[in-house]
Amino acid sequence: MVSAASLAALPATSASAAPGDPGEPLEVDVCVVGGGLSGLTAARDLVAAGKSVVVLEGRDRAGGRVYGMTLGDGTVTEGGAEFIGPTQDRIAALAQSLGVQTFPTYNTGKNVYYRSNKRSTYATDGLLGAVPPDWGVVDLELAMTTLSGMAATITPGRPWTAAKAEEWDSQTFHTWSRLNTVSAGARFLFDAFISSTLSVRSKEVSLLYVLNYIASAGNAANAGNIDRLINTAGGGQELRITGGSQEIPLRLAAQLGDRVKLNTRVRRITLDGGPRALVESDALQVSAKRVIVAMSPQQTASIEFRPGLPASRAQLIQRFPMGSVAKFVAVYPTPFWRADGLTGQAVADSGAIDATFDNSPADGSRGLLMGFVNQTNMRRLHGKSDAEIATACLASFVKLFGAQAAAPSHYAYHLWDADPFSGGGPTGIAAPGVLTEFGEALRAPHALIHWAGTETADFWTGYMDGAVRSGERAASEVVALV
Amino acid sequence: MVSAASLAALPATSASAAPGDPGEPLEVDVCVVGGGLSGLTAARDLVAAGKSVVVLEGRDRAGGRVYGMTLGDGTVTEGGAEFIGPTQDRIAALAQSLGVQTFPTYNTGKNVYYRSNKRSTYATDGLLGAVPPDWGVVDLELAMTTLSGMAATITPGRPWTAAKAEEWDSQTFHTWSRLNTVSAGARFLFDAFISSTLSVRSKEVSLLYVLNYIASAGNAANAGNIDRLINTAGGGQELRITGGSQEIPLRLAAQLGDRVKLNTRVRRITLDGGPRALVESDALQVSAKRVIVAMSPQQTASIEFRPGLPASRAQLIQRFPMGSVAKFVAVYPTPFWRADGLTGQAVADSGAIDATFDNSPADGSRGLLMGFVNQTNMRRLHGKSDAEIATACLASFVKLFGAQAAAPSHYAYHLWDADPFSGGGPTGIAAPGVLTEFGEALRAPHALIHWAGTETADFWTGYMDGAVRSGERAASEVVALV
Repeated sequence: MVSAASLAALPATSASAAPGDPGEPLEVDVCVVGGGLSGLTAARDLVAAGKSVVVLEGRDRAGGRVYGMTLGDGTVTEGGAEFIGPTQDRIAALAQSLGVQTFPTYNTGKNVYYRSNKRSTYATDGLLGAVPPDWGVVDLELAMTTLSGMAATITPGRPWTAAKAEEWDSQTFHTWSRLNTVSAGARFLFDAFISSTLSVRSKEVSLLYVLNYIASAGNAANAGNIDRLINTAGGGQELRITGGSQEIPLRLAAQLGDRVKLNTRVRRITLDGGPRALVESDALQVSAKRVIVAMSPQQTASIEFRPGLPASRAQLIQRFPMGSVAKFVAVYPTPFWRADGLTGQAVADSGAIDATFDNSPADGSRGLLMGFVNQTNMRRLHGKSDAEIATACLASFVKLFGAQAAAPSHYAYHLWDADPFSGGGPTGIAAPGVLTEFGEALRAPHALIHWAGTETADFWTGYMDGAVRSGERAASEVVALV
Repeated sequence: MVSAASLAALPATSASAAPGDPGEPLEVDVCVVGGGLSGLTAARDLVAAGKSVVVLEGRDRAGGRVYGMTLGDGTVTEGGAEFIGPTQDRIAALAQSLGVQTFPTYNTGKNVYYRSNKRSTYATDGLLGAVPPDWGVVDLELAMTTLSGMAATITPGRPWTAAKAEEWDSQTFHTWSRLNTVSAGARFLFDAFISSTLSVRSKEVSLLYVLNYIASAGNAANAGNIDRLINTAGGGQELRITGGSQEIPLRLAAQLGDRVKLNTRVRRITLDGGPRALVESDALQVSAKRVIVAMSPQQTASIEFRPGLPASRAQLIQRFPMGSVAKFVAVYPTPFWRADGLTGQAVADSGAIDATFDNSPADGSRGLLMGFVNQTNMRRLHGKSDAEIATACLASFVKLFGAQAAAPSHYAYHLWDADPFSGGGPTGIAAPGVLTEFGEALRAPHALIHWAGTETADFWTGYMDGAVRSGERAASEVVALV
């Protein structure tokens, strides 16, 4: 871990050429490609170790999938990654080192359950809390017990080493969930679990991938489990960041100063067999002893690697697609659902939004309701006008929380699928056959190139904590080599 | 259809600016991105219709996945797409119009079956011919009958419209084949069917995708079926091209003349809402009324689209990975296996090569044996030396065809996964959930951009015939609009 003080004490940059020198590449120890949380974390650790570093980021902002949307009233709220929870030690430590505070996600009252055009409420966190009022609860509990037992055999981040990896990676989660449940209620909740955590449909994802995702919801001392993955209290959605999660990458980028180059999309990485890699972007060229590519695997398809990547890596990046997700946030004078005894959390089987959270600021001075537009629903929004998108999303809010939701003072949304620097969200997923055939290539360094990004994390892959872990791991790989 | 004569009569190019004019884009009616068989076919039809066309190809040759490897003795043989069969009307007509001849694939004698370290031979084409000498034949025949019945309900190229599309696209072919067989022999042959046609493992591919692949092995008058897909006599492997299949794209490119620009990799396609698209490559810029992108979907991830593609298309290209395949060809003084009563065709469950063909020239003056290195085996070759690759592949040939195979006079191979312009082969495949969620985006034009490539074909998708059909279809979409 690096303290802010030690970082601030380092020289601004030890690079030996000014960026933009025509024909003369900037020479650094390490070039980080991607200024999201994983890339910034890697850069921070390397700078603290006395290395010269430059971070090349294609967007006009740092943070990647951690993004603060500004609403019409000036409020900034999370348009991307948002929550922190127990066992997410690395993002928590990073936040603390940056002076960023957390507060509990609002979680008092009941959640809304909307299915088959019927609205009800339930009191408990997690899938089991949401079971329909029938014998589906037994069905779901039996299947969840089976699933938990399977996940317990997974080494997080290395699911292909499990004894039954081949069997579990030969089927979709849909196949498994249908063979292991009989009730419509349990099946709906398994699909909702996949949609709300991965923003894909259960047919798109390997059973092995889901087991690894469950196993990764922990740390070295605490094995991952479903409840920690999906719960608010005691789970991955327990805490929020005061001022918004974007404070973390923005403060990190500010500390890194002019080492972070925005609007600098990398186009080509050339390895000539010598001791340095050449990284070419629209704006500048960098010559580095090592390169850390801190991007989701599929986004690296936009970079030309010379010579081509090893076959396993080249094919992996064709096989790690992003989920489909948008976040929609509406602002109201008060968090009116609280007065109705509701948490603001909901799960729904119809409408544009299938999961919601209370996104209000810590002091509750205004009410912000956030909805996830997942998988098929996300794609239905594309090409729609702003008014059509708002109408569809607000209709969901009204259905779930009542007529008061119809007229927010402001709203904002971010369509991650249409974001050319992300191509979807929240994370890369794997269909059957991918982890067992190509999984090793997720993290295996290639010559002078190392890989970061939340998809490469052992714990909390897909989350901010996984991004931080991956950046720390990539920096530790590189630090002794440059 | 366009005759060679009518094409030759057209002016060389009616473009209004010379390529390379600094800052001044070449103005054409249609810019074709990709000089493989689909792009060249589209260009040919458009030129015949009087349109000005330029074809931008990143490689230093035309043909894409149709590629002639030159052996040490000067022989040219297929390193990529090779065969033509009944109902493949469009590639046959194209070959004929170019004066290219065909001859029957050598198919006299028995095929070799190698499984569990035991070599045997069998007499019939197709999966059923290769069943082990046990009751697995009944098992396989029952499952094949079921599979054929399912495929018969598919509209080729639009599998997502099938009544059971959702069910069939929620599972892998592995899941289906295990639930519908009990014998190890039948299961092996189903896996071999997927490996030898798609170069992936049965766990990687959606049942719906396989059903569509079967249904596409026909034409408008003859419904596709498994036998036509996999057989030599009467099937997709029935005929070869005299002089090698590369003759087709090379002659087509020669007719198109300086309209085909090699070493011209496209980097960006910009649509500004006006009547023209700007296509930027390393070498020149093109301004076109319409653009036909004639590439496998996943390869288009290397192009920057401004503004970004619609969400469904953007996500599709993350979800249509190539199979993993290499072709290895060895040259012998004679086709010695023929004297042993063998066709040169084999299927094997171990070794680098799992399927073979007799690649000798029509006159049998020398013996050429060709082996497919598929899926996991392909990836094992990466990083290996030339000698290691030859040793591994020749060991397969010896195991299947005897000691005479050990010492060819020459050999050559092409590792398609390591080919940066293909990223694998023979074709793009779809995991579960992809065709039902994203399939419409395979062909749906986006503003001024149209899509070609064998992956977009209705019939014989994945084959040369499909590539030609896709080019003809894309040209027909565009011709009335420019």
